[in-house]
Amino acid sequence: MIPAPHLPTARDPLLFTPGPLTTSLAVKQAMLHDAGSWHFEFNARVAWIREELLRVAGLSRAAGWEVVLLQGSGTFGVEAVFATCVPPNGKVAVLANGAYGERAVQMLVHARIPYAVLRTPEHVPNDPLALDQLLARDPAITHVCAIHCETTSGILNPIHELGAVVRRHGRTLIVDAMSSFAGMPIDFDAAGIDYLVSSANKCVEGVPGFSFVFCRRAKLLACEGWARSLSLDLLAQLRGFEKNGQFRYTPPTHSLLAFEQALRELELEGGVAARAARYRRNHETLLTGMRTLGFAPYLPATVQSHIITAFPFPDLPGFSFDRFYRRLSDLGFIIYPGKLTQADTFRIGTIGRVFPADLGQLVHAIRRILLEMGWTPPAGAAPSLQPAIS
Amino acid sequence: MIPAPHLPTARDPLLFTPGPLTTSLAVKQAMLHDAGSWHFEFNARVAWIREELLRVAGLSRAAGWEVVLLQGSGTFGVEAVFATCVPPNGKVAVLANGAYGERAVQMLVHARIPYAVLRTPEHVPNDPLALDQLLARDPAITHVCAIHCETTSGILNPIHELGAVVRRHGRTLIVDAMSSFAGMPIDFDAAGIDYLVSSANKCVEGVPGFSFVFCRRAKLLACEGWARSLSLDLLAQLRGFEKNGQFRYTPPTHSLLAFEQALRELELEGGVAARAARYRRNHETLLTGMRTLGFAPYLPATVQSHIITAFPFPDLPGFSFDRFYRRLSDLGFIIYPGKLTQADTFRIGTIGRVFPADLGQLVHAIRRILLEMGWTPPAGAAPSLQPAIS
Repeated sequence: MIPAPHLPTARDPLLFTPGPLTTSLAVKQAMLHDAGSWHFEFNARVAWIREELLRVAGLSRAAGWEVVLLQGSGTFGVEAVFATCVPPNGKVAVLANGAYGERAVQMLVHARIPYAVLRTPEHVPNDPLALDQLLARDPAITHVCAIHCETTSGILNPIHELGAVVRRHGRTLIVDAMSSFAGMPIDFDAAGIDYLVSSANKCVEGVPGFSFVFCRRAKLLACEGWARSLSLDLLAQLRGFEKNGQFRYTPPTHSLLAFEQALRELELEGGVAARAARYRRNHETLLTGMRTLGFAPYLPATVQSHIITAFPFPDLPGFSFDRFYRRLSDLGFIIYPGKLTQADTFRIGTIGRVFPADLGQLVHAIRRILLEMGWTPPAGAAPSLQPAIS
Repeated sequence: MIPAPHLPTARDPLLFTPGPLTTSLAVKQAMLHDAGSWHFEFNARVAWIREELLRVAGLSRAAGWEVVLLQGSGTFGVEAVFATCVPPNGKVAVLANGAYGERAVQMLVHARIPYAVLRTPEHVPNDPLALDQLLARDPAITHVCAIHCETTSGILNPIHELGAVVRRHGRTLIVDAMSSFAGMPIDFDAAGIDYLVSSANKCVEGVPGFSFVFCRRAKLLACEGWARSLSLDLLAQLRGFEKNGQFRYTPPTHSLLAFEQALRELELEGGVAARAARYRRNHETLLTGMRTLGFAPYLPATVQSHIITAFPFPDLPGFSFDRFYRRLSDLGFIIYPGKLTQADTFRIGTIGRVFPADLGQLVHAIRRILLEMGWTPPAGAAPSLQPAIS
């Protein structure tokens, strides 16, 4: 046998990423069971998860909503909406200001689905006026796809304004809310959402393994016969759940058990409003601390989400992201590399089972490493700086 | 919050299914960690898993082999081969004698890929002679897809003979070895395999979350530009691993940590040969016991695998599979329903972290329930029957 890589140090590092995230121990412990995917007890759990997800989203079956779970990462969920719900003569407009908008475009290229792209720079939100003009002049467009929180930069796109435009033109709105769902309130009806995709390892604080797609049931039922993929056929997946409570193909049973516990903990915390408030405090703690170290976010505050924040590299001779990242990792903190094309940045996520005190510790660690790298604290700064913890 | 279903009883039931399976506690405990999917430590683990999988399969990079991990269930892996590797003008011949062959056909229907199907009855193996004739008369066929162990019945298909035919005609062979890989030796070169698909929660005894595809690297590299799906693009997935060691999209990090431990335990057991021997003993213990209860396998012994066995319903007035299943579940044993179209059967899997003694206990439980249902033991049988345990 090839020697395995050495075991990790005693404590797991904290993850300040867009996901997979740090989860609670109880969420992970829920995976210490093997469940039969055909068994009625397991199916009852899956049914409960689907009920509870609808409740968390503020939706109901009576009002025509459904939620479909799909194996794979969030990307599989977004592609499943395209593969299932765009008719053979359909066309999709994608609003892009980062890597996830561009990924949606790539899905359409691969599926040979016609598309149009409305791009704005990475620090500029999607433009509802430009969308209005595009939809007015291109009646072939049947669907519009927007990314709620584009984690490339951490920017929040105006889905309510976009939704109003889509609705006025009678098109269908698909929202990729991967990193925002359950991390901030979303009013599906006010935003005119038809399909919304998120995944298990984001703000519900479960582990990876599946995505979930909220959909207006009547819209999805109208997609009969369009699916371009068997595995990614959302309508067949819904029919499977409705027929016998089962996934059509092997589900990630352990991820689902973890997710059940994660949903319980979301409710115990006080639901989405309370979780959003914690994430906001995390974000504010981070910003306050980082400012004392001379860092300012890449984005203007008006469009910055509390999910993830991009910071331009410090103006420090010989700064190496790789060294910075590895030293932080040595100290038990995992951050995320930048993904912007327009600037050299790194990113810090403020979601998952992390708290303002953890963000305070992270800022301390960053300060320590900057000092090692030859950084001079600004005049007047306290020698052992304590970032505000709310 | 909607009340959650009640917690399971103290001990988890044993799973006698085709997967997800019973796994070891250590495999599940490996999931008590959150790993950053971008982090170098995690990537080193993924690299180790890929190396070790090749080694377990008896393959090497030097000989031109690669293995690609893909999020989702095994079905996603099979569909990914079709979606990526069949050229725009390609055509696939599917050998079908059960639900998994028919599923492959459905994948091709959805992807609008031309196909031919060679069907044999569910108790008859794929026919190499019929394949030879089909390939001779249809030069449009570029790929042949066979299911190694068709778990619908538990039948073993003759991949060596099929592979020889495919090779002689210069076509490409795709083998769905979902439930057989690591549960019995497979000689890739002798069988002329080009692509072979299996999944994490089968005979390696990991948990569900991803599939893996062994492929001849040169064959996969020749598929540039054909992918019909972004998520299921195997070539791009390979390029991602080769570029930076990462999955392109969020991996099921916990499933991967579990799989690393599962691979270690496979080696500790003595590799594939030892595991296959245990599964064979499981199967023989089951058969010996079931025969004393009047059950005979649906399949002739010559084509029956040691992976899963289908048994026709007993000739017992008022036998109800649902009642039988629930009573067995009460006693801590989960079996599997039948999937055959030609006969009423139930299925018992003999793979996973289960041992001959467990199969002995299962047979005892079945005997107990049959007696409850009014069954009369055959004359001369011992009153408290002890199935042979090897």
